[in-house]
Amino acid sequence: MHEARVTRLLQLLQQTSLDGLAVIPGPNLLYLTGLSFHLMERPVVALFLQDVEPALILPAFEQSKGQASAIPFRLFPYDEDEESRASAFQAAAVHAGLAGRTLGVEPLRMRFLEFGLLGQAAPEAVLVGAEPVVTELRLVKDEAELACMRRAVEVAQQALRRSLPQIRAGMTERELAGELTLQMLRAGSDSELPFPPIVASGPNSASPHHVPGDRALQSGDLLILDWGATASGYISDLTRTFFLAPLDPELERIHQLVLRANAAARAAVHPGAACASVDQAARSVITAEGHGSEFRHRTGHGIGMEAHEPPYIRDDNAQLLQPGMTFTVEPGVYLTGRGGVRIEDNVLVTPGGCECLTSLPRELQEVGS
Amino acid sequence: MHEARVTRLLQLLQQTSLDGLAVIPGPNLLYLTGLSFHLMERPVVALFLQDVEPALILPAFEQSKGQASAIPFRLFPYDEDEESRASAFQAAAVHAGLAGRTLGVEPLRMRFLEFGLLGQAAPEAVLVGAEPVVTELRLVKDEAELACMRRAVEVAQQALRRSLPQIRAGMTERELAGELTLQMLRAGSDSELPFPPIVASGPNSASPHHVPGDRALQSGDLLILDWGATASGYISDLTRTFFLAPLDPELERIHQLVLRANAAARAAVHPGAACASVDQAARSVITAEGHGSEFRHRTGHGIGMEAHEPPYIRDDNAQLLQPGMTFTVEPGVYLTGRGGVRIEDNVLVTPGGCECLTSLPRELQEVGS
Repeated sequence: MHEARVTRLLQLLQQTSLDGLAVIPGPNLLYLTGLSFHLMERPVVALFLQDVEPALILPAFEQSKGQASAIPFRLFPYDEDEESRASAFQAAAVHAGLAGRTLGVEPLRMRFLEFGLLGQAAPEAVLVGAEPVVTELRLVKDEAELACMRRAVEVAQQALRRSLPQIRAGMTERELAGELTLQMLRAGSDSELPFPPIVASGPNSASPHHVPGDRALQSGDLLILDWGATASGYISDLTRTFFLAPLDPELERIHQLVLRANAAARAAVHPGAACASVDQAARSVITAEGHGSEFRHRTGHGIGMEAHEPPYIRDDNAQLLQPGMTFTVEPGVYLTGRGGVRIEDNVLVTPGGCECLTSLPRELQEVGS
Repeated sequence: MHEARVTRLLQLLQQTSLDGLAVIPGPNLLYLTGLSFHLMERPVVALFLQDVEPALILPAFEQSKGQASAIPFRLFPYDEDEESRASAFQAAAVHAGLAGRTLGVEPLRMRFLEFGLLGQAAPEAVLVGAEPVVTELRLVKDEAELACMRRAVEVAQQALRRSLPQIRAGMTERELAGELTLQMLRAGSDSELPFPPIVASGPNSASPHHVPGDRALQSGDLLILDWGATASGYISDLTRTFFLAPLDPELERIHQLVLRANAAARAAVHPGAACASVDQAARSVITAEGHGSEFRHRTGHGIGMEAHEPPYIRDDNAQLLQPGMTFTVEPGVYLTGRGGVRIEDNVLVTPGGCECLTSLPRELQEVGS
């Protein structure tokens, strides 16, 4: 499986002006090699070039992990001192023949640290962002990947079902976030969640990426829960909006509106549709009711090994949907100072249209009573 | 508090050739401003320069978070399209007067994405790694920070006490990692752990950064648990080694050896001692018994808002310890194919010497019987 993925990477590279790709720890390395490292102050860099044995620069004490890789690597281990590190980078650059080549890097991953070390080791190489290759690599999910994603959805849904009965007025956002996390682990999530759950109550729910704090839930609150689980490295990412009675009728109308936008977007998903058209399907529903400026983000983002990855469901993204793509559909409306609503599902593009992976009810539900 | 920290940053910058510092989401931004963002595909960059109102480039939909910052920022919000993003970076670069200036960046944080956008917005600025400033900034902890760290230790210790009785032969590493995680959350950890717990059993314990897998615990195993909790953003990081009987007497001797090395290193901690001398205190004990080459990493690393930060307790680090520094002491010996031992404590340099923040017993303890 991993060998086929590396072969595909090399084919993708041939369609570009890049001679190779440098990959640091994270989803791309895991996808290509099965290798998982913490991203820390000791750099780990894999180099993939045509007709060269892949190279892996890594701390000497991690060598046994490098040797156990699903992809046979030429290892360039370094000791704890800076000189040893620089010579490992240099030896790898020579092995890979980087001089005079154009090497792609992961723009959202590669740090100043690795960038600088590669630049020093191969001053005659050109390092450029490899966005198109990295975007394409994990874009279409295979059955094995989808099985993990379905499990990640089921774990998240089970965790919500078990958390809802615990919700009470007076509970803080932070406590509820802890409860949701605990229930995800208990339901079988990998220990590394895709993101810490968002619990946003009352006026805080008008901030799309609110960090749960010490605010206690109280009557009249809208309550946004945005959470996800990880299963064998693949993630889910759901949002549902609840309320603590009594609810302002206007906020209830907003919920109805977002619900319609969510349905319209899901109905617009099919192979060949542009990402923009899915965004517009949701956005036009909300704009028609005069709340366009309060839908303050795109309609969705791809999910897989990462919580945010291509395809991005934005109104300026002409990218066409293909079967096997997976993304979120998550329109929202946010009334500053009063509260917000977001309803987020995870969908799979199928040959015939769209399969919704998430199945929790979307209707506005009272909690804490 | 945050204003004083920014003032101190500007003073630190004056001691260097840097005109300013660019900071992206993560511990430095949180420390300086109280702001916490997920690091994703939408860049967020804060610019701190002398005599200029600090600038914050951020997605428009996060503006309310920017406005709520403890540090008053001039905000440069951008919409979802690339043009808007580029002009926000450009406007911020003009506001900060970046042209012709030397701007420091966080070498272990700044990504190719932000680096590229800053470079485009200010082609006449020089971007360099700001290691010395970033290193110094959070090096000495104040009482408020130490209170969080003490809580993070207590949460982690309580989680271990509650997990130990659950351990059984036949349990997988992954299951035990999940149990430890769950117990940390229940004991009150922030939902974002410093790192997923390491559970390494039998031969896997010879790999210092092993990722917990499907191996089931069995009799004769050494068992390394390396875990930590987060309290209000500050972390703890402990390791203890256990065994499932019967244990090979040589592995037991190794444990005694590591125990002595741990004690020797802690005894070497006092203000004015070099980091190297603490490393050497542990290393010489292990080397004297012929296992020097099997102690395959440094003796420790700083902890605080990050799981790995300065000071690094390495044999080539001449940095002198100061009161208020906090770091791990974690010697280990790893016998490939057989098993490893590591004993990790968290210490604080005090005016009089060293306070050990961790208090769990270090003796080799049987589990699973």
